Amino acid sequence: MNGARALLDTLVGNGVNVCFANPGTSEMHFVAALDTVGGMRGVLTLFEGVATGAADGYARIAGTPAAVLLHLGPGLGNGLANLHNARRAHTPMVVVVGDHATYHKKFDAPLESDIDAVAGSVSGWVHRTKRPGDVAADTVAALDAARRGVVSTLILPADVSWSDGATSAEREATVTFGGGRDDGFTLDDGAVRAAASALRSGERTVLLVGGDATRAPGLAAAVRIGEATGATVLCETFPARLERGAGVPAIERLAYFAEAAAEQLAGAQHLVLAGATSPVSFFAYPGKPSDLVPDGCAVHMLASHRGAAAALEHLADELAPGSTATVASLARPDLPTGDLTAFAAAAVIGVLLPEGAIVVDESNTAGVGVAAATAGAPAHDVLTLTGGAIGYGIPAAVGAAIAAPDRPVVSLQADGSALYTISALWTQARENLDVTTVIFDNGAYDILRIELQRVGATDGHTPGPKAQELLDLGSPAMDFVRIGEGLGVPGRRVRTAEELAAALADAFAEPGPHLIDAVVPSLLS
Amino acid sequence: MNGARALLDTLVGNGVNVCFANPGTSEMHFVAALDTVGGMRGVLTLFEGVATGAADGYARIAGTPAAVLLHLGPGLGNGLANLHNARRAHTPMVVVVGDHATYHKKFDAPLESDIDAVAGSVSGWVHRTKRPGDVAADTVAALDAARRGVVSTLILPADVSWSDGATSAEREATVTFGGGRDDGFTLDDGAVRAAASALRSGERTVLLVGGDATRAPGLAAAVRIGEATGATVLCETFPARLERGAGVPAIERLAYFAEAAAEQLAGAQHLVLAGATSPVSFFAYPGKPSDLVPDGCAVHMLASHRGAAAALEHLADELAPGSTATVASLARPDLPTGDLTAFAAAAVIGVLLPEGAIVVDESNTAGVGVAAATAGAPAHDVLTLTGGAIGYGIPAAVGAAIAAPDRPVVSLQADGSALYTISALWTQARENLDVTTVIFDNGAYDILRIELQRVGATDGHTPGPKAQELLDLGSPAMDFVRIGEGLGVPGRRVRTAEELAAALADAFAEPGPHLIDAVVPSLLS
Repeated sequence: MNGARALLDTLVGNGVNVCFANPGTSEMHFVAALDTVGGMRGVLTLFEGVATGAADGYARIAGTPAAVLLHLGPGLGNGLANLHNARRAHTPMVVVVGDHATYHKKFDAPLESDIDAVAGSVSGWVHRTKRPGDVAADTVAALDAARRGVVSTLILPADVSWSDGATSAEREATVTFGGGRDDGFTLDDGAVRAAASALRSGERTVLLVGGDATRAPGLAAAVRIGEATGATVLCETFPARLERGAGVPAIERLAYFAEAAAEQLAGAQHLVLAGATSPVSFFAYPGKPSDLVPDGCAVHMLASHRGAAAALEHLADELAPGSTATVASLARPDLPTGDLTAFAAAAVIGVLLPEGAIVVDESNTAGVGVAAATAGAPAHDVLTLTGGAIGYGIPAAVGAAIAAPDRPVVSLQADGSALYTISALWTQARENLDVTTVIFDNGAYDILRIELQRVGATDGHTPGPKAQELLDLGSPAMDFVRIGEGLGVPGRRVRTAEELAAALADAFAEPGPHLIDAVVPSLLS
Repeated sequence: MNGARALLDTLVGNGVNVCFANPGTSEMHFVAALDTVGGMRGVLTLFEGVATGAADGYARIAGTPAAVLLHLGPGLGNGLANLHNARRAHTPMVVVVGDHATYHKKFDAPLESDIDAVAGSVSGWVHRTKRPGDVAADTVAALDAARRGVVSTLILPADVSWSDGATSAEREATVTFGGGRDDGFTLDDGAVRAAASALRSGERTVLLVGGDATRAPGLAAAVRIGEATGATVLCETFPARLERGAGVPAIERLAYFAEAAAEQLAGAQHLVLAGATSPVSFFAYPGKPSDLVPDGCAVHMLASHRGAAAALEHLADELAPGSTATVASLARPDLPTGDLTAFAAAAVIGVLLPEGAIVVDESNTAGVGVAAATAGAPAHDVLTLTGGAIGYGIPAAVGAAIAAPDRPVVSLQADGSALYTISALWTQARENLDVTTVIFDNGAYDILRIELQRVGATDGHTPGPKAQELLDLGSPAMDFVRIGEGLGVPGRRVRTAEELAAALADAFAEPGPHLIDAVVPSLLS
């Protein structure tokens, strides 16, 4: 068989059965192989950033990796921002980048570029397959690497793809994904003892939870520890997948703005990291510390992003044997009325969020009220913008919906970020995915209006007209309903809480994608 | 002054007065400086790929570089594909990538990534500014490098941007852009002699023209040489900027498909390269040569991409002293009638193309008839997809229109490629640019349907349903009129030649951006 078939066969044989693709000429044999090798679903996206974001959303929900098929260096470049987010989320992913034929590269054809250098910036594993006979083993190696929670990038030259001499994998990848005790992570006894000692010290301790501990088992263990020891339990600012809502142990997230995060951490003498990294300011600000760990606070690394849930469960059994974590109660906000604001929109979402929803949150500043408003909604998952590279939400909703076709996906999307990868709406329509996208439409890069002041760029003065113009999205105003309809997703514009409630209820009642353009004022207005 | 102001001041002082921007927090001091340093026009784009493509289109028309402002590694990644095209076009460009503050990088904050590695893949010059006092000199160095026809990338840490201690440039950059004799390029006398000898040999010679020789002076010299010596004069397949139409010396372009290109070159015993690279197949195909130079053909490098026009003029004066090049006559096609096809659409464009138009051509397969149909139109420039990375056209039209506000820009755009950077329409509306976008809407990645066969991926059989699905854009059908309207550009859908003619006439008559969704059948149907 040729290399393309061996690649597909090995992927399918190891449980990878979705491939988000934006192929080109150098990938045509892979495309053709989809019809000869069964078991792989090819999902077309209109831009590579949609493919990579979708694969990230898919893997966060499915727990198994999707494949991504990209075309040469420029295709990889287009997918890079969402690979960056996936890297920060420790998402397992296998990225296949088709390259020119091995003998063609020396001619420096127009699309030739340094794929390896670009791939290296986001991938935990990069390999260039040299012969058809190596395809299966290289694919297994890519999957084994992905298991560690990295983006694996396999560069597949066109002639390796089209030439015969390949075989399917003789051995299967050791891929197992998931969370909890059974993952076989080796506990670091010393780290557990140190964390236990800090938590027993009676000194103010913060337990910062992240990685694989932000799902119910890890959260339950963390809350048990907090309830038994008095430690403050916080979740990392941007968890890859946070389980929350009624019936799930609830923990507050570390704030995005450094000033607020510093308040949450103030006075801590011990900081125990369970799957989270040590907290730092998202950006630097003149005269303000980057490191958010309070002076004199001892940092104890309990576990890295994988194995954190298992370590917390072990620690909870030691510190709070037999205890049960308090869980959030079902408590929805009251339905607001009148003109829509960011907070009113959040409340409406809190009132109506369906059971078992997957919330993809790229609502940025306009979504400031969503976490509080949905804390008592029925249990749901939240996927967040782990790497800060905007343009993640609409693609990730594609992947989440494909991973969990029976769950409603609610995609909360800031207007500015939406335009990065707006064509993902088309894939939602094409695949008839049950995604409800709410655009928080405030007509501005509101976060940057805030940041312009916070970094002191205008010395406390009102920004000048040129600066304001670069942060404004209102001239001309975008019409997301028309954009959505042009891409095959029906939409509705809403300006009041009642209209949003009606639009959400209708969208949740009818399968398939919907878009709601929720016009809200800027937080600064 | 702070680093941001010194950067702007130095750019403006050296004639760079447009900056295409998609800023973030780390660039806020640059944004604020736009109001304190006069002379720089900031143009907001909704995606970095729009900013880089616009800067490419701008510089190709203006002859001077634009600046681009990008946000950290992911912003650079989003702009990478169009930087790849700019690299292949030898476009002078200064890319400023804001980075975290120097002291912040060690904390590996969420947006931290290897900017240098990614920038290196597309830039002829990359530098990371270390101190505010270095900003002005580094900016001059970036401009000097850009003069060589490269993408210069200046990485500007946020604290260098916001800290005082910078001054304006003490010396100006040696930047001079343009073409023709006065550029001061040193002629390679040996190369000129070798080329002259080949052209005088009486053996079949092809003169392949590219680089700065695809504008009127270089073309005239090349045509004079061809007319005097009998050499076949061809233009590189994807010129950065080709002048053509009535009154301009006309030369045929080397074909995209290798089979057709091989026919154009068949029998050549000498190939003289004037600003073009030696012809190679765009992609490799099983069993077919990558190198398109015929066996036994001697290749003579007359000049590289810059200085080619000057070298040709020198050579023409030697080989054809006192001669004048034949130029194309004004000759428009007849206006077709009835159902629109790709060729009918091309003819309508040929009938109506305005004097002095700038044609940005990303029409790909559907635009196959455009070159012939517009050969006798009034003189115009054509910008092409030099690097093969799609998503170039709509952004490049933005830049071209800003560079030449008095010239009509005609953006010929394939449907599949359009979705890569569709938000560029919004910037066209925001800046009220005189751009008429014609979407060749055939509902498919038609080029890939062709390539799937050409690479032999289906062994001559009809592609299977999964392969066909990955090349289809018709399910759901996109409505570009709605998409355009949602982004602020009025549009019209046309299905007949008459409708296209009416829509084009209206668009050309009314200033500002317009979109025409031209529904055409697939070339394969």
